[in-house]
Amino acid sequence: MIGVFDSGLGGLTVVKEIMRELPGYPVVYFGDTARMPYGTKGDAAVRRFAVQDAELLMREGVEVIVIACNTASALAREEVQAAVNVPVIDVVTPTVTAVLAEDYRKIGVIGTSATVRSGVYEKMIHAADPRRRLYARACPLFVPLVEEGSERRPETAIIAKRYLNQLKLRHLDALILGCTHYPFLRRQVQAAVGPGVRLIDPAQATVQLLKRRLTEDPRLARPVSGDPHHRFLVSDSSPIFARLASRWLKRPVELELVQVE
Amino acid sequence: MIGVFDSGLGGLTVVKEIMRELPGYPVVYFGDTARMPYGTKGDAAVRRFAVQDAELLMREGVEVIVIACNTASALAREEVQAAVNVPVIDVVTPTVTAVLAEDYRKIGVIGTSATVRSGVYEKMIHAADPRRRLYARACPLFVPLVEEGSERRPETAIIAKRYLNQLKLRHLDALILGCTHYPFLRRQVQAAVGPGVRLIDPAQATVQLLKRRLTEDPRLARPVSGDPHHRFLVSDSSPIFARLASRWLKRPVELELVQVE
Repeated sequence: MIGVFDSGLGGLTVVKEIMRELPGYPVVYFGDTARMPYGTKGDAAVRRFAVQDAELLMREGVEVIVIACNTASALAREEVQAAVNVPVIDVVTPTVTAVLAEDYRKIGVIGTSATVRSGVYEKMIHAADPRRRLYARACPLFVPLVEEGSERRPETAIIAKRYLNQLKLRHLDALILGCTHYPFLRRQVQAAVGPGVRLIDPAQATVQLLKRRLTEDPRLARPVSGDPHHRFLVSDSSPIFARLASRWLKRPVELELVQVE
Repeated sequence: MIGVFDSGLGGLTVVKEIMRELPGYPVVYFGDTARMPYGTKGDAAVRRFAVQDAELLMREGVEVIVIACNTASALAREEVQAAVNVPVIDVVTPTVTAVLAEDYRKIGVIGTSATVRSGVYEKMIHAADPRRRLYARACPLFVPLVEEGSERRPETAIIAKRYLNQLKLRHLDALILGCTHYPFLRRQVQAAVGPGVRLIDPAQATVQLLKRRLTEDPRLARPVSGDPHHRFLVSDSSPIFARLASRWLKRPVELELVQVE
């Protein structure tokens, strides 16, 4: 079983990619909806929450854990790996590898306040190649806008333009969508930075790495024959969550309420 | 000592009113910033959190507790009062009393998703006077907009108009600002519903009730001579919180990090 966790429901973009690329594997998803969002929280809280989330997935018997949250990946991937005895894949590391494999010179990063404050993408990319130029911008309203279903409203385009106008002036080669909610705003972000900028969705690089790991070491987790049974756990249930989850995954999703603390 | 709690920092609008109306009383404020916002959470989580918040204030030795959060007031005021042996004042009950004292016929309520879903204002007002007409609307982006400092941006006016256009057509007599963050958006809300609508800020009725209680029963809490020492506790500290708190209270605020769980 593949365990996936996020602060809320944004990590479902990673689950969607797993369903597409690794269709036979059952997924246990945990969304820490009671304590979401992580992106506006302090570092210590995010670390504590992320370790608790991983421990919860371990109790469900997962064989590999994907941290489907950029904020938790940025601040807590080492703490999470230290806390569990299964492989942990975060969304930042494979994205950095994917970016370094291409000849992008000017790279933008957008994410939550906590992700951008951590400087994780800059640090990891510069450690490998100091000549790359990085430009980061926090976009705190993007998560609530997506959770409200306001992707296509005019104010969302205005807010995207305001957040991204400085990045647009940089004439970027690529822009990392450094929050699992942001792929839902792909069109609006592209319009705000201009058509020439390549948008990088960390879900893709992450699931490619997961796929490689599972191919290299088939004992890690095995696909089932027939349709796998996926589970979706949340720490707080609200009528809105189930509706959003079903809409995003384009299938009926039943949420199970669990206690994480 | 007066204890005040909120899911985050919005409750500082109530503290500000206490400082104005009851200048001699020391306040201990607790903002549950690690688990904020409450307004998008489910009922059970909000109840559990609110009781823990009140218990934390009791450990600080407070003599009266103000629930400076509409969501917690709507969902958990009975649970909180049952959990502590000091008087508890919520923001909803005194606001309902103030509204009933006036001849408002058509009354709007705006608040978080959880507050609006609870229907608390409608139920309490209708229990006293079934002839009043109530119209409610959730405004989920208002809290993140205020926390980003975006009160005066054009997109905030657009979002306010979108949320409030149905209420505007009702030609309301009064509109309850049913979230402690919303007084920061007073001007934008007034513009969206029209100049004839009286805006009701629950902080005022709440602090008037607190003042009456303290006058009637002076043993409850006593003012200090000289400048009282206020404390501001949070369950998660982020550089943004201290900046916002100081800006809103118009004085330097030092936040103390505490553990609530």
